Amino acid sequence: MPSISRSKTMVGMFHRYLNYLKSPSFSILTLQAPPQTEATLQLPVFSSFQHSPLIKLIYQQNRIKCNNSNKNMIKSSLIEPDGGTLVDLIVPESQRDSKMAEVESMAKVNLTRIDMEWVHVISEGWASPLRGFMRENEYLQSLHFNCLRMEDGSVVNMSLPIVLAIDDEIKERIGSSLHVALVGPLGDFVAILRSIEIYKHNKEERIARTWGTTAPGLPYVDEVITPSGDWLIGGDLEVLKPIKYSDGLDNYRLSPKQLRKEFESRKADAVFAFQLRNPVHNGHALLMNDTRKRLLEMGYKNPILLLHPLGGFTKADDVPLDVRMEQHSKVLEDGVLDPETTIVAIFPSPMHYAGPTEVQWHAKARINAGANFYIVGRDPAGMAHPTEKRDLYDPDHGKKVLTMAPGLHKLNILPFKVAAYDNRENKMAFFDPGRAKDFLFISGTKMRAYAKNGENPPNGFMCPSGWKVLVEYYQSSQAEEASQ
Amino acid sequence: MPSISRSKTMVGMFHRYLNYLKSPSFSILTLQAPPQTEATLQLPVFSSFQHSPLIKLIYQQNRIKCNNSNKNMIKSSLIEPDGGTLVDLIVPESQRDSKMAEVESMAKVNLTRIDMEWVHVISEGWASPLRGFMRENEYLQSLHFNCLRMEDGSVVNMSLPIVLAIDDEIKERIGSSLHVALVGPLGDFVAILRSIEIYKHNKEERIARTWGTTAPGLPYVDEVITPSGDWLIGGDLEVLKPIKYSDGLDNYRLSPKQLRKEFESRKADAVFAFQLRNPVHNGHALLMNDTRKRLLEMGYKNPILLLHPLGGFTKADDVPLDVRMEQHSKVLEDGVLDPETTIVAIFPSPMHYAGPTEVQWHAKARINAGANFYIVGRDPAGMAHPTEKRDLYDPDHGKKVLTMAPGLHKLNILPFKVAAYDNRENKMAFFDPGRAKDFLFISGTKMRAYAKNGENPPNGFMCPSGWKVLVEYYQSSQAEEASQ
Repeated sequence: MPSISRSKTMVGMFHRYLNYLKSPSFSILTLQAPPQTEATLQLPVFSSFQHSPLIKLIYQQNRIKCNNSNKNMIKSSLIEPDGGTLVDLIVPESQRDSKMAEVESMAKVNLTRIDMEWVHVISEGWASPLRGFMRENEYLQSLHFNCLRMEDGSVVNMSLPIVLAIDDEIKERIGSSLHVALVGPLGDFVAILRSIEIYKHNKEERIARTWGTTAPGLPYVDEVITPSGDWLIGGDLEVLKPIKYSDGLDNYRLSPKQLRKEFESRKADAVFAFQLRNPVHNGHALLMNDTRKRLLEMGYKNPILLLHPLGGFTKADDVPLDVRMEQHSKVLEDGVLDPETTIVAIFPSPMHYAGPTEVQWHAKARINAGANFYIVGRDPAGMAHPTEKRDLYDPDHGKKVLTMAPGLHKLNILPFKVAAYDNRENKMAFFDPGRAKDFLFISGTKMRAYAKNGENPPNGFMCPSGWKVLVEYYQSSQAEEASQ
Repeated sequence: MPSISRSKTMVGMFHRYLNYLKSPSFSILTLQAPPQTEATLQLPVFSSFQHSPLIKLIYQQNRIKCNNSNKNMIKSSLIEPDGGTLVDLIVPESQRDSKMAEVESMAKVNLTRIDMEWVHVISEGWASPLRGFMRENEYLQSLHFNCLRMEDGSVVNMSLPIVLAIDDEIKERIGSSLHVALVGPLGDFVAILRSIEIYKHNKEERIARTWGTTAPGLPYVDEVITPSGDWLIGGDLEVLKPIKYSDGLDNYRLSPKQLRKEFESRKADAVFAFQLRNPVHNGHALLMNDTRKRLLEMGYKNPILLLHPLGGFTKADDVPLDVRMEQHSKVLEDGVLDPETTIVAIFPSPMHYAGPTEVQWHAKARINAGANFYIVGRDPAGMAHPTEKRDLYDPDHGKKVLTMAPGLHKLNILPFKVAAYDNRENKMAFFDPGRAKDFLFISGTKMRAYAKNGENPPNGFMCPSGWKVLVEYYQSSQAEEASQ
């Protein structure tokens, strides 16, 4: 299995990354950035962003912060998690044995690999304030309003139903039990679900309201929803021990708590998150570096990039996580992104490919991890329509919906500028509609086709060592296919 | 056409109804109900409702009102319309001529009968604060969040996209025009749409997110969406004159402004709305009368019932509006409902049959008409699944979603108690699960079957004069069908 050898590379890669963090330049960073003084209050007028109402918003919010406080004009503490407190559902070590004894007698519910990914997500507080799989009350609010109303009347975003399905047989086995034990794919006790509620799983309605289509061929639907049971079970989660994957990448799976600690230890005064499930090319890098520049211009002293690849379920033709992680590491090694101001970590959520509905989840989870800026691109979490020759979503809807979404107004949304390959300059650059003919758009599909065919993309599209990772992955996949 | 003769009956009926309003007993009512004094502060503990958390909410809200003011413990002014001001988009008489001259030169957009119903709805402020057909910003919020965020950060409910579709040809004809003229089905200029915005009409996504299914056979989809164009046009509406139908029922089409005036002149201290698209049977009446009793017990002095049949598009097998209005009139004449404390008016909206999504619209529109209590039943705005043998919606979801809906928390939701025919008492009564076998459930379908076959339902199911209206309608329809 090629993934084993790749995993070994991963371990080495992680150690190299850790060394970056411990390097002298990193220490210098931790010593800098005192709170801003009044002299820096005047924010510069920035050129290319200035016509965007979104950026204007940030600018204004920034101003409000400046006006509210004379000393610390830009709030240096991290953004508050949704609901005020970061949820942590891992049972303390001291209680583990007693809980383990308790589960033995409980009705058992078997989890799939993707259910486990959700247990992971919920347990670490990515979905704060959610404390377990959704009960019907939460499910209906998520499905209809993409948000949850808290007891104090405030609203948090919650666009994807985070639910656990069971079939008739399990439902009968549970009977009138109050609590159930959740059992992992290997037969190990993973968690307790307390004060359960079982309600109907109307798959058609869930799919229609989440994806805006019921066309066959949606990856998450085919993989997760269609084969699942006709009931949903909600309740409060107690996770018996942290979820690990033992794939050589667990060290990259930093929890929101760990990420917040890291941002604080680096004295970040702005954290900007970049969600991705593809290799990083130089256009992405240009955008991230440009964002940092803009944040510095806005008066932030120490903006930190959270480069945050999605680590859960992805569709079959996406590049696997371990390959992506190796590719990302090359991008940092090559200095395309600055390791001193970048944290690479894995976001453990599975992918829905639910466009404007899902991008809210991607942004919301990053608030919980401490990010107060979120970069959003064209057609986030989108894909081709499974049965028609068009994109499933309007490519602009994702970012529009994100700026409108209940509970996300505290997050600064940074719209993605379009980067393309500039044939005149031989590098990735922001698209200039004034000389459109000079630019070449290289889609993910096109990039994968280059790599599969062993062709090189134009010079400057991606750092050569990163590109090599992709080419080697496709070569080894093809060799494997050929040998079967 | 049978509707003409029926329409004549309607006119007479309306005059009879007006006479009720003008009757001495009505005058007595307007003289009563002084603001409550402190002595009435103690709210009674009511028996059958007391376990409902919803009613508890009302009780608490009531208490809050009591605590906030010593003199007027129950607020006597009507509930505020959404957005604070009731929208009224009818061009003043004085400006009509100049607007009429202006439209001549504008690009023209033809309206269907149902588009006209929406113009009617928007123009009178049922959808306040909406001031025209939705632009994309409002459409996306409605589709994804069932609500609109106002500039001050407050939220109003808006669960149905209220949109106007145009085809490629009209879009091309409009070109870069800023404003367009809306032309009614008879070729008359109806309205101006100002500062227009044209955007894509993704029908599949709209249907999936609104109905939670894309199965063929949804009445509004078949009638309105499928035949419509691939673009939506939004903008600010100026309606050249009030929308009239000349069907003998226009006098029943009271605008929110007119209704509010009526409630105020009656010194209503609570308005409870009952949305329906079916004939009123004695179970409905029992419920409405019981609600009034409960409101009196809660300390309200003058609760007024808004009996509010939906007047726009309905599916082919629903009972037509004019027949329903005649039936409702008989119910009032027979004294099954008290004309002194009831206002019958037509709600001009078309019907979507979109269950939990649509019930929010039904409730929200009634806030704008001045209602602060809303009665919700089993499976509101629901129907059978068009292709599967089941209800399209979980019958409890409507009322659950209504209590959760953003922007509707200011409305008191009154859950429908189930009424059925009690064979022991020979009348409609609240279902008693303790002696379930005594009760007969008569669905709308069953009721229509009785009427179609000229059979009588059990004694006490509906007042005889109301029943006669239905039987005669079905007889005349069958005679008409037979003659064709």
